[in-house]
Amino acid sequence: MSYITSELGPSTEKPATELVESGFALENADAPVLHRGLNLADLAHVIDLRDQRVIPEDAARRLLGLLLDVHQIAAEDFPYDPNFGEPYNSREHYFVERLGDVAGWLHAGRPRREAARLALRLHLRRQLIDVVDDATTFVDRLTGLSALHLETLMPDQTYLQQAQPSTFGHYALSFAYPTLRDIRRLLDCLDWVNSSPGGAGCVNGSRLLGDRGVVADLLGFSRVIEHTRDAMWQVDGLISILSTAASLLSNQSKLAEDLEIWSSTEFDYVDLAGPYTRSSILMPQKRNPYSLSIVRGASGILIGRLSGFLAVVKSPSARSDNLIFAYGEVPRSLDLALRVTRLMTGVVSTLRVNKERMAAELTKGFSQATDLAEFVVERCGLDYRTAYVVVGETVRRASRRALRGVDITGEMLDDAALEYRGHTLGLAGTDLTAVLDPRQIVMTRTGQGGAAPAAVEAMIGSCRTQIAELRTTTGRWRASIEAAEADLLAQATTGAGR
Amino acid sequence: MSYITSELGPSTEKPATELVESGFALENADAPVLHRGLNLADLAHVIDLRDQRVIPEDAARRLLGLLLDVHQIAAEDFPYDPNFGEPYNSREHYFVERLGDVAGWLHAGRPRREAARLALRLHLRRQLIDVVDDATTFVDRLTGLSALHLETLMPDQTYLQQAQPSTFGHYALSFAYPTLRDIRRLLDCLDWVNSSPGGAGCVNGSRLLGDRGVVADLLGFSRVIEHTRDAMWQVDGLISILSTAASLLSNQSKLAEDLEIWSSTEFDYVDLAGPYTRSSILMPQKRNPYSLSIVRGASGILIGRLSGFLAVVKSPSARSDNLIFAYGEVPRSLDLALRVTRLMTGVVSTLRVNKERMAAELTKGFSQATDLAEFVVERCGLDYRTAYVVVGETVRRASRRALRGVDITGEMLDDAALEYRGHTLGLAGTDLTAVLDPRQIVMTRTGQGGAAPAAVEAMIGSCRTQIAELRTTTGRWRASIEAAEADLLAQATTGAGR
Amino acid sequence: MSYITSELGPSTEKPATELVESGFALENADAPVLHRGLNLADLAHVIDLRDQRVIPEDAARRLLGLLLDVHQIAAEDFPYDPNFGEPYNSREHYFVERLGDVAGWLHAGRPRREAARLALRLHLRRQLIDVVDDATTFVDRLTGLSALHLETLMPDQTYLQQAQPSTFGHYALSFAYPTLRDIRRLLDCLDWVNSSPGGAGCVNGSRLLGDRGVVADLLGFSRVIEHTRDAMWQVDGLISILSTAASLLSNQSKLAEDLEIWSSTEFDYVDLAGPYTRSSILMPQKRNPYSLSIVRGASGILIGRLSGFLAVVKSPSARSDNLIFAYGEVPRSLDLALRVTRLMTGVVSTLRVNKERMAAELTKGFSQATDLAEFVVERCGLDYRTAYVVVGETVRRASRRALRGVDITGEMLDDAALEYRGHTLGLAGTDLTAVLDPRQIVMTRTGQGGAAPAAVEAMIGSCRTQIAELRTTTGRWRASIEAAEADLLAQATTGAGR
Amino acid sequence: MSYITSELGPSTEKPATELVESGFALENADAPVLHRGLNLADLAHVIDLRDQRVIPEDAARRLLGLLLDVHQIAAEDFPYDPNFGEPYNSREHYFVERLGDVAGWLHAGRPRREAARLALRLHLRRQLIDVVDDATTFVDRLTGLSALHLETLMPDQTYLQQAQPSTFGHYALSFAYPTLRDIRRLLDCLDWVNSSPGGAGCVNGSRLLGDRGVVADLLGFSRVIEHTRDAMWQVDGLISILSTAASLLSNQSKLAEDLEIWSSTEFDYVDLAGPYTRSSILMPQKRNPYSLSIVRGASGILIGRLSGFLAVVKSPSARSDNLIFAYGEVPRSLDLALRVTRLMTGVVSTLRVNKERMAAELTKGFSQATDLAEFVVERCGLDYRTAYVVVGETVRRASRRALRGVDITGEMLDDAALEYRGHTLGLAGTDLTAVLDPRQIVMTRTGQGGAAPAAVEAMIGSCRTQIAELRTTTGRWRASIEAAEADLLAQATTGAGR
Repeated sequence: MSYITSELGPSTEKPATELVESGFALENADAPVLHRGLNLADLAHVIDLRDQRVIPEDAARRLLGLLLDVHQIAAEDFPYDPNFGEPYNSREHYFVERLGDVAGWLHAGRPRREAARLALRLHLRRQLIDVVDDATTFVDRLTGLSALHLETLMPDQTYLQQAQPSTFGHYALSFAYPTLRDIRRLLDCLDWVNSSPGGAGCVNGSRLLGDRGVVADLLGFSRVIEHTRDAMWQVDGLISILSTAASLLSNQSKLAEDLEIWSSTEFDYVDLAGPYTRSSILMPQKRNPYSLSIVRGASGILIGRLSGFLAVVKSPSARSDNLIFAYGEVPRSLDLALRVTRLMTGVVSTLRVNKERMAAELTKGFSQATDLAEFVVERCGLDYRTAYVVVGETVRRASRRALRGVDITGEMLDDAALEYRGHTLGLAGTDLTAVLDPRQIVMTRTGQGGAAPAAVEAMIGSCRTQIAELRTTTGRWRASIEAAEADLLAQATTGAGR
Repeated sequence: MSYITSELGPSTEKPATELVESGFALENADAPVLHRGLNLADLAHVIDLRDQRVIPEDAARRLLGLLLDVHQIAAEDFPYDPNFGEPYNSREHYFVERLGDVAGWLHAGRPRREAARLALRLHLRRQLIDVVDDATTFVDRLTGLSALHLETLMPDQTYLQQAQPSTFGHYALSFAYPTLRDIRRLLDCLDWVNSSPGGAGCVNGSRLLGDRGVVADLLGFSRVIEHTRDAMWQVDGLISILSTAASLLSNQSKLAEDLEIWSSTEFDYVDLAGPYTRSSILMPQKRNPYSLSIVRGASGILIGRLSGFLAVVKSPSARSDNLIFAYGEVPRSLDLALRVTRLMTGVVSTLRVNKERMAAELTKGFSQATDLAEFVVERCGLDYRTAYVVVGETVRRASRRALRGVDITGEMLDDAALEYRGHTLGLAGTDLTAVLDPRQIVMTRTGQGGAAPAAVEAMIGSCRTQIAELRTTTGRWRASIEAAEADLLAQATTGAGR
Repeated sequence: MSYITSELGPSTEKPATELVESGFALENADAPVLHRGLNLADLAHVIDLRDQRVIPEDAARRLLGLLLDVHQIAAEDFPYDPNFGEPYNSREHYFVERLGDVAGWLHAGRPRREAARLALRLHLRRQLIDVVDDATTFVDRLTGLSALHLETLMPDQTYLQQAQPSTFGHYALSFAYPTLRDIRRLLDCLDWVNSSPGGAGCVNGSRLLGDRGVVADLLGFSRVIEHTRDAMWQVDGLISILSTAASLLSNQSKLAEDLEIWSSTEFDYVDLAGPYTRSSILMPQKRNPYSLSIVRGASGILIGRLSGFLAVVKSPSARSDNLIFAYGEVPRSLDLALRVTRLMTGVVSTLRVNKERMAAELTKGFSQATDLAEFVVERCGLDYRTAYVVVGETVRRASRRALRGVDITGEMLDDAALEYRGHTLGLAGTDLTAVLDPRQIVMTRTGQGGAAPAAVEAMIGSCRTQIAELRTTTGRWRASIEAAEADLLAQATTGAGR
Repeated sequence: MSYITSELGPSTEKPATELVESGFALENADAPVLHRGLNLADLAHVIDLRDQRVIPEDAARRLLGLLLDVHQIAAEDFPYDPNFGEPYNSREHYFVERLGDVAGWLHAGRPRREAARLALRLHLRRQLIDVVDDATTFVDRLTGLSALHLETLMPDQTYLQQAQPSTFGHYALSFAYPTLRDIRRLLDCLDWVNSSPGGAGCVNGSRLLGDRGVVADLLGFSRVIEHTRDAMWQVDGLISILSTAASLLSNQSKLAEDLEIWSSTEFDYVDLAGPYTRSSILMPQKRNPYSLSIVRGASGILIGRLSGFLAVVKSPSARSDNLIFAYGEVPRSLDLALRVTRLMTGVVSTLRVNKERMAAELTKGFSQATDLAEFVVERCGLDYRTAYVVVGETVRRASRRALRGVDITGEMLDDAALEYRGHTLGLAGTDLTAVLDPRQIVMTRTGQGGAAPAAVEAMIGSCRTQIAELRTTTGRWRASIEAAEADLLAQATTGAGR
């Protein structure tokens, strides 16, 4: 059989209702995401077509005028309608109603998909800059919180068990670093986003428009994506965006859960400021740390958005669903990340820390045990394991007697050693005050990144340097994008004869 | 320390803007999902309170009247506003504006969470019935398609390689069975959903309202969920709903991808009807099977919705995020499953099958090889492995000579056997026509569930019996729910003195 | 072009090293999962072939003898070797080495895939019974724990904030119910698993073996899966197994995280028994609730196993990867669920509960506030919202003064009412002892599923009834499977002439 | 209550069987991953302790000797045993058996967790270099394949429908670019991995060992991770590794599915070389593209590994499960990515491309339609939409008449225009040969990244430049790591007095 038996060419029938209510409705729900970018992409395309003399001057002028008008219309007010198809079809319908056949020049040398790809990137680049900026603010507030609590003693915990004496300042700052690393990843994503798929034709180039740099420049992209098929279909950067957004919230979720635990009356370590809580309708005593639930839940949601998108793109190559579903999923996920980051920033900025409770619980416990064992090593020349065993036995006995770490004496260590080693350590009468005092222990943590106030201050300084650099970076990005878009609109205005 | 150092009781400050724009905005976006159910739940609660004499007759009368009015207002038209908090708060605000303190009676003996839990279940039970119904229609259309193609020969494939001769009718029907099993699972979910968490108080019961059966009956639930804390917080049924929805679309996605492959001009086995395709804006020859992209993409999305929800509920117990995020995620996922199932039903109902192409490709290939080897086993008394090797070598040689399966002769088998076994099989001159004819091969598949037309017809019959039973089941469900809700509204109308 | 240009028939080249080290290595890693089931499936197949006179008596006898020998060999000791291909190929190699061409009879009328599908189901049915049994034991231990603590007062929490007075018995039992529901789902999965795909031929039936019931009966399956193509490729039951396993651990993870929080010295509500903890190597005071970390982590892992499997099966139909990856993923996931359930059962069985601490914290707080507001409603005829506001203000003031809930007096309520309502409530001098006493509050929760001891006892009884029924069910399952497998081995032994 | 009521200090009871069989068994399964790194980390720690005079010279000498011996033992041969606890405990047991108390010095100033963190990073850095190297080879083979097919015409497809004439060389190269971008991401991950958490003490520094740079230098890390708590608990880089591995395979999976479709006899575009296929046991004609199933399945598995890990780390901060589960999940995922990348490299290197079939199908279709419409635009001065409609109608009519794209004539265009526009376009008699010839169309795609051979050659050149740079980069990484590790072993040998 040397021919195709089925009919080809556009169908002349109207779309099925079920399709309008599924595919087209779904795509139109994303119109607000793409609207602005489609306007800009169309403007750039018309200017390119005009300059390459692919379309008549007059058609270009009228198209530019109409597109500038549409650019003034908010997405919500533009008649996007699933009955016409996806958003591009609604636009075409609108253009034809106003310009007749002249509207038909717009489509020369460019598939719908290219316009949407460009629009997505134009949207994402602004979102990414916003997320970077707000995540930077989050880091900034964490450094502020940390600076306030350089000397606020608390028990650092592992398995939520008291581990060693530390400070709340050291603790709080530990959430700044993962954020800074995710910010770097987001900037890499921004670099990926700000590349132009323009001029890729269908997937292998177009013969009408030879220079792909024109549209890229007009839209303020940093570069052209080299391979045209790759340009049309690449999703790796979107995976990276979603993964980094999930990582960003994962870190915030950890902090949120810590704070929720510490907000319990049993811990009573911290309180959220009133505006970040929610009261109960039933229980008059309740002041619930509602904001933290939102942060944790959103973190879970983003895990699903990422895995869902990865499942969507598990398809053959060059399949439309890869991007159709990206138009909504990726920007909405970034939007959620943005809102939640702002929320967590507010929580951190206004958090009330209960120093007395932290200190009281620290005093109650045995978090000095490691330092005590190290003291035994140094003083008695014992290997660490032996010292550990002696101190461990001492702690067991002390806790059975309802004593605290600060109550341990040399005699108690000797007793434990006698049983375990067959002889005492000669520690009876030794003054252990300095060894057992949490504050003095913290003061020994002067190594790089340690909990001693000076070490934390040094880190705060290094974070603030990074914050300042990041502000400069995002400022430059914003300025460059604004300039490019303003220039494009100016060229279009001139081109429209206005 | 024997007291709590932080202030308790509802905060007197207004919510932070970041909270309004994240948590409250997010919850208000789900108001349309909950609106109807909240109305019903509130009505039932007021009737219960009144009958237990917890609230004054007059307050009950006025509350019922107002709630009936609100029940006439579409969710979109009700002033849900994140600035008031989540949807329940907007409702309270609305009620207080109209009834003053009288509105305060509504909250007796019931937390906001209970109202929302009830509303979610009232929403989900209708959705689940719809999904079951539409999935049943999908099965019905598959049996219809199958019945049309009992004798439409085609090569069944594994690894997309021709495996054995079969029929399109047998193939199509294979997608009915997983759907029927998922429908049974959805009915189990419906049974789970239609249980009442009402009267659970906060989490351990209420002393105001002793009989939890009242609200359950008023709302048409099948039973009360026994343990009150479980009633408030259970999520296992929601996991099951999402998982079954994902499974349902997973099966459809397989069919969609098969059809997308078969719609290629290279295969040319099937064509989607025009209303399920989409044309290109650039390429005039294109008639893209767009509907199939939507089905596959939606299947991927649901994988993410499920894993995201599972991540959300990976939390300590009794945490609000578990349900706050469920209010939107679960109904929206079911809604997507519903729309996509309808779309796929339309695709299946209107599919054009190209019998000639299927037959032509079947004839071109070697899918008779297994039957031929079995023939050799029977005729020559060879073990299967030996017969397999002889036939395999015969196929290799034939395909190198550009022959087809139907061209194989006894001589060719003898030649292969000679080389491999050192002697021929004495098959030269044997008439292999019957062994090699795909149609006759299919006719041998008369065992249970096989591809012979009679076997497929038997299965179609069994599917149709199940379809009829399912229609009865959903019909009963619908009638019972409608009756309960109508009865509740009637009681409320009477109670409102109307 | 009316012929296929590429060569068909089995390749005569050896597999590539990269393939041996990826696909074949991966499949051989699953040999221990399939080994036993492959033996049984092969035995049943040979008996079926013999009885249908497809293969010679003598070949059947020798094959049965060899297969019985292999059945004595542990999977670890059988020479499964990726260099031969996947496990089935290693078996074939082993059989041919011992029986020569006679081994070739084994393959008549059955693809490798069918053997593996049967083997997977034979493995899964035993695993599912084990999981059901162990999950039932978990429920049993929860009821035991609950029964010990019917009167152990504690503050039930939402948002980890004290909500209302409750008991630890009521709390503990709330984890039994989701487990019972997941057990029901697992039994549904078992029903799905115990259906036979046998006799499906490639995908559309076989002509050699007409009665698919023979193999099903020999292997103790409850029924034959009707549609042969569905029989070969269905994955919905596997999705359901993974989803239910994830749900099962999700519930345990919540309990684990609660216990981890409550094990903190700040809460000090519970302690894990020593054998479920792990000491630190560095910190001598540490006794970490390590078991809980394992439970929570495993819960997260299963979320990924489920979403990964769903992504794998997002493929066209009849693709091998769907099941190739299932052979390892599903049984390993169930095995993890099993081990973790046993671990959590141990944790629950040996948990030490600190009643004094729970009572002390309850006394410190304001969890009586709801009951107090309800008292105000009843006593003063106020609507609930108004009572709530008065009590809320009272709590705020009391907490500022470092008072506790039990310290609230009628005067304090009057003061708050005066400010808020402009007049007092006339409560000065009222004895609030009964209203504010947590124990008496709990005693009011006598409604179905409430926290009053009698209500909890009723639930324990209902759980125990279910436990007993489940024991009967799994006992019957086990007996039936053991009988079928023993019978098969007996028939094979006879058939082997032993 | 001012003291802790529960007993603290290490438990003196042995671990529960259920714990040994879950947590400890699970951790010991990862011992092979960590073994080598633990040896190196221990060596560096002992040298650091010795140089800081924390431990006696003699103890250091003996410990170094023993550790060097252990370094000679393969992980499989070392007595890791869950009954002792996790792998670190087995090591301790082994050391104490040989050195008695001297072994106890090893634990000074360092928790077990730090050793494992270091070991994980030492393992991952080698794996990452391997993955980068093998992914680079994959890119190299793709460029090789592309170079062979610069002029192999084929229809590029969207929705698997013929879109425009292109070349297989252009197609194949489109998979190189996403890989190159993922390689860059992997190098960023490597940079993250190669940072030292050493010297972090528990979480807030140690007082025994002041200079964290010593261990970092000894182990060849690029830098010290600044904040000690962050150093102990960061997981963002692991998320990024898993996400990038998933992305890497996602791209390969697309290619694999394309090739599986094209391997069908219906397409017959490509064949896998024999060593990458697998034969059937039942069907003698089958040569299944098994390798492609493995690639696609593995891609799905990695999606789950990523989402599972994200779910695991959705926990409070400083929880052990975050890393306990990472030790196995992350290296195994990378190992799978590595094996599969090698497999796909083999597939690509040996792929047989059927030029005739591709050309034949191209000729059969209408993929010239876009170029034809552009020709109409240029020749007739029509807007693109109008030209599109005329060509679309022409295609519809031609396909109904069983004509091909190359059969279209000017008359046919005129006829369509007459009906649609009311007048012809004056194209009757025009020679459309050049416009309709796929080869000539491809030759027009000379813009950047287009399908014209020169454009593809330019891209191949640019890819090869990148490949060469990457080889240099990984070579430098390898050399630097080898040198550091060799130097450490040399120092240890000297220190051991050997």
